[in-house]
This record gives sequence, C-alpha cells and structure tokens, in this order.
Amino acid sequence: MNTTILLKSRPKGKPTLNDFQFVSDEIPQIEKREVLLKTNYVSVDPYLRGRMNDAKSYIPPFRLNQPISSGIIAEVTESKHPGFTKGDFVSGVLEWKKFQKSNGKGLMKVDPAKAPLSAYLGILGLTGLTAYLGLTEIGKPKKGETLFVSGAAGAVGSVVGQIGKIMGCRVVGTAGTDEKADLLKSTFAFDEAINYKTVPNLRKAIAAACPDGIDVYFDNVGGTVSDAVLFNINPFARIIVCGAISLYNETRMPMGMRIEPFLIKSSALMQGFIVNDYAKKFPDAIKQLSTWITSGKLKYKETIVEGFENIPLAFLDLFEGKNVGKMVVKV
Amino acid sequence: MNTTILLKSRPKGKPTLNDFQFVSDEIPQIEKREVLLKTNYVSVDPYLRGRMNDAKSYIPPFRLNQPISSGIIAEVTESKHPGFTKGDFVSGVLEWKKFQKSNGKGLMKVDPAKAPLSAYLGILGLTGLTAYLGLTEIGKPKKGETLFVSGAAGAVGSVVGQIGKIMGCRVVGTAGTDEKADLLKSTFAFDEAINYKTVPNLRKAIAAACPDGIDVYFDNVGGTVSDAVLFNINPFARIIVCGAISLYNETRMPMGMRIEPFLIKSSALMQGFIVNDYAKKFPDAIKQLSTWITSGKLKYKETIVEGFENIPLAFLDLFEGKNVGKMVVKV
Repeated sequence: MNTTILLKSRPKGKPTLNDFQFVSDEIPQIEKREVLLKTNYVSVDPYLRGRMNDAKSYIPPFRLNQPISSGIIAEVTESKHPGFTKGDFVSGVLEWKKFQKSNGKGLMKVDPAKAPLSAYLGILGLTGLTAYLGLTEIGKPKKGETLFVSGAAGAVGSVVGQIGKIMGCRVVGTAGTDEKADLLKSTFAFDEAINYKTVPNLRKAIAAACPDGIDVYFDNVGGTVSDAVLFNINPFARIIVCGAISLYNETRMPMGMRIEPFLIKSSALMQGFIVNDYAKKFPDAIKQLSTWITSGKLKYKETIVEGFENIPLAFLDLFEGKNVGKMVVKV
Repeated sequence: MNTTILLKSRPKGKPTLNDFQFVSDEIPQIEKREVLLKTNYVSVDPYLRGRMNDAKSYIPPFRLNQPISSGIIAEVTESKHPGFTKGDFVSGVLEWKKFQKSNGKGLMKVDPAKAPLSAYLGILGLTGLTAYLGLTEIGKPKKGETLFVSGAAGAVGSVVGQIGKIMGCRVVGTAGTDEKADLLKSTFAFDEAINYKTVPNLRKAIAAACPDGIDVYFDNVGGTVSDAVLFNINPFARIIVCGAISLYNETRMPMGMRIEPFLIKSSALMQGFIVNDYAKKFPDAIKQLSTWITSGKLKYKETIVEGFENIPLAFLDLFEGKNVGKMVVKV
C-alpha cells in the first residue's frame, strides 16, 4: 500500500497537525516513458507555509485535499523511461507520497557516492543555491565588509555566513537559543553571534558586534530583527530579502517600522530573492559549493527526522526554531 | 545691510515660522580669489526637513543658530577671482543670505540666455537630475511597462512621468488635489492620475488604472500611498525610494505595513536614491534634459514665491502640497 499526505485545510496563523491528512492509496502502475519512485528524503521548508494560503505568489498555492509537494530525493524502483535505470537516485519537486510515478520531467540524477543523499536537499540543493546566489548576486560582498545574517543557524543562514567568511567578510548573525549562537561561532566560523531572544537591546547588541556598521544583510527572518539591523546599515548597504519566517504565520497584515527613510539616507538596496529566478547559474554554483565542501571550507548541519508519518510535525517544528541547519525527513 | 536666515530651533514634527530667525548683518568684504554674490533665486526642498533634525544622514544636519543653505542662483556683483566676472550668474549650494561671499568652490556658471534662471534650480538642476537619474539608473523602465509615480505633481514627480512617457511607458500618478490630478493628464501627459485624498479605495483605484500591474514605482511620498502601490507590483518590479515627504514630520518612528513579503513574492528591488551619488553622470543627464526641453518633449511648472522674507513660508508650504512643480523663491 501507498501513503499520501494531503492539505486538509488552509492554516489560520500557525499550522497544526489537523491541517494535514494521511490517506492510503495504491502504488501506481507505470507506463511507457515513466518511472516509479520510492521516497527517501523529504525537505520541509518555511516557504511551503506561503503555498498553504490561497494567495497569489511566485508559485501557485497548494490545492485543498490534494498532495503537498516539496523537494524530495527518491530511488527509481522501476523504469520504462530510457533516461533512468532501476537503482538511480533522483532529486525533484515531488509529492508527499511514499511511492509515485513520474515522466522524468524536472528530475535530476544525484550520486550517493559523491555526497550523502540528504545533502542534495540542502547544501547541494536549493538551500546551498539560495545561500550562494542570494549572497553573491544581490549582496555582492567585498573583502573587509561586514555581513549580517538573520536566522543564521538555519539551513540557509549557516551556509551564508560561511560563504561570507570565505569571501573575507566580518560575519555576525542572530539565532534564537544560546546553543545555536555558540554553534555559529564554534562550527560555522561566525565572528559574533547574538541570541535575539535574550539580549536586552538588540539594536545596541548589533551595533557592538558590528563596530564598522553593516554592508550586507542577508535576511531570513524579517520583523523586529530586521528593524534593529536597519539602524546599523552603512551607506550603499545591500539587503537580500530571502525569507520572513517571523511573519509567515501572521493572520493580520504584519505592521512595523517604516523602512523607506532608512533606505533613502543610506542609498541602500533591498531586493526580494527567489532562487528559481537564477536557474541558469545553478550548475556553476553547485560546482563552487562542491569544491568548498570537499576542501573542508564549507560545513553543514542537518536536522534529520525519521519516518514518513513525521513530515507534518517536522514542518511545524521549523516555526519553533527546532532545527539546526537543514530540516529533512528520512522516510 | 544684509539679511540672513538662521535655524533658530529644531522643528518638532511640522516646522513652523518660529523655527527660523532673520538677522541683519554686514555685506561681507571680499578678498583675493573671492566673489561677492547677490541671491536671485532660492530652492526650497522637502529634503531640507531632514537636515533640520540632529540626526546622522547622508548630509550633515544644519547647526542651530547658523544659516540654512540650499540650492541658490546668484549674481556675481564683485569679483577678485580669476574665474568669475561681475555680471556672471552662478548656481551652488549657498546660504540663505541676500549677499554672501564665496571662494568659487562648488559654483557652476549658468547662462540666462539658454533658460530662465529658476530652471537651473529645477528641471536643469537637482530636480531634473533626480528625476532622470533615479528613473534610469534604478528604475530602468522598458517600453510598454507601467510606471507609477507618487507625488506626481511635485517638482520631481512631474518630470519623472514625462520621461516615462518619452521612454514608452504607461504612466500613472497620484496627487493631492483634483486640480493637480487634472494637470498631470492635461499638461504632463500622464495616462491616468489619482487624487489619493478623495478616492474611496486607493489600492483598487491603482489596480484599475494599472491593469497590467506596476513595473516601476518612483516614490516621492512613502507611507500609505506606497502600501497601496505594493499590492499592485509585478514580478521584478523596481522601486525608487526617492523621498518620503509623508513621513518627514513624524515625531515618532513611523509605523506601517511590513513590506518584506511583498518584495519576496515579486523578486522586487527597492533602492534608496540620493542624486549626489551619481554626480559623474550629471553632464550627460543635463545634456539629455536640455534636448528634451528644447524639442518641447519635456515641460515644467514652477511655483515662484516672491520675496526673501517668504523663504521659510515657501518651505512650510511644501508640506501642505501648495506647490505645483518646483517651488522656488525669487528674491
């Protein structure tokens, strides 16, 4: 038998387990030019929250009572497709199902001999690409500049900080526990790390950790953390707006400090970043990331949750900050 | 006798006439390599409000009990400087004085035969440069795109809209009176104009006036007008944050809608614009603006207030929207 996870209801505010439904169905029969895929690893990501709303965005919303989809690593267990052989491992945006068929479109083969399979969902997948391309294409950090990262212990943030160090920046980040803040310095080579939940005055703490101001701000979080950062930006600062996890579960229009005056007085640039806009640069970026991983310059952490049945919970835990690095479910 | 206008007190919120002080002083004696200047036209601009606060910004604050300065056109009435002759007209950032001396630094000669002197403070000065360089360097409008302009009947806005039309855009703008909105269409060739003060639902009015969405937003105003615009931006929109006149007199930190989610879902770019950052491009830009004026493609309006004693009032009137086009005081 097969199992599929459907979006049962559109979450109001913070999602709950009741918004998901497990259904049993048949393992599909494949036809000519199709493959049967067995799910190995499932990526859960903050951006999926946006797709659960019935709202126009850069990708269409999930449909009610239909399977949810995300980045998945799967094994080809049967193939009638000339491009795939039984035993191949592939990566793609696939449905939350134990088994599914595919016509091969959008699938990319991945090599378990070169890196652990889960890495293709993280550091060698959209996570690594988001960190590298967001930082280099919008942030354009120069040696000696200060890079600030919010959500720095998360999947993207922990990679951004390390790339910043490789590029010669002073790197400072925020995280939500002391353990994560320690990890940023001990494992990910950040120069300074701030626990934004316990520091008495975040704006001043950032000023102290960034004595020369902030030139590049890689923002995964939005909200009040970003407000505190804006008081510390330098002329010609570049702000990569990659995520706003602090706002995703708001049920009313989130309100906050007006930022236009900060942008004007610093001639600062702020740009929304969606990794798929840069698809042409993926191959070169993957090559660069692989080189850094092999040489030991780039480290990565994963939070691996076991069991297909735990996919919804792993997703919910993202909003509690329970992950360090990339959150992945092993089926 | 000479007269000088000093900043008597830093305004709290909206400036008042009491924040300014007129003092009588001597007409200065010039020495070698100096000129004596007689003020003809004084530019009053919203950005001066920022300099009246004691706050770090891209230009230093005015000092208390010291002369205010802004763009001024003056006549050389006496010269001991080899570069200037009695009867020359010059443009520069000068003090609010009837007479002052200068060593010539930062002065640019202007030709009253080529354009009315006041134009060198507006369309052929920082106003025209701001419109042209902000729009082309950050906005990069393409033929067929929709350009939206807030504060469209103001000095910068009215020029931005016309340049947008020259570049083949659909151009829509907001203004604060029906008269100004009419003027945008009748004189400045806007396709649509919206009175933001009387329209029942600004967001919907913008959507109706911009059926293909907004690709470039030239923002002079900030605040709630910008909020309504953000609901209507297209993927890869460019937002030039040139001014935020709606916020300049706020005494508390202005609050409003969080904009990060809008930037993310549209991969939109938002950048603070300060014209002095682009000083290298001034000569080419002035050449282009002059060509358009001569050929009749670019029209401009001025609100000319008479009398040195009315400089502070003319400045205050900017915040009441009493100007159409560039506000200038003729001494």
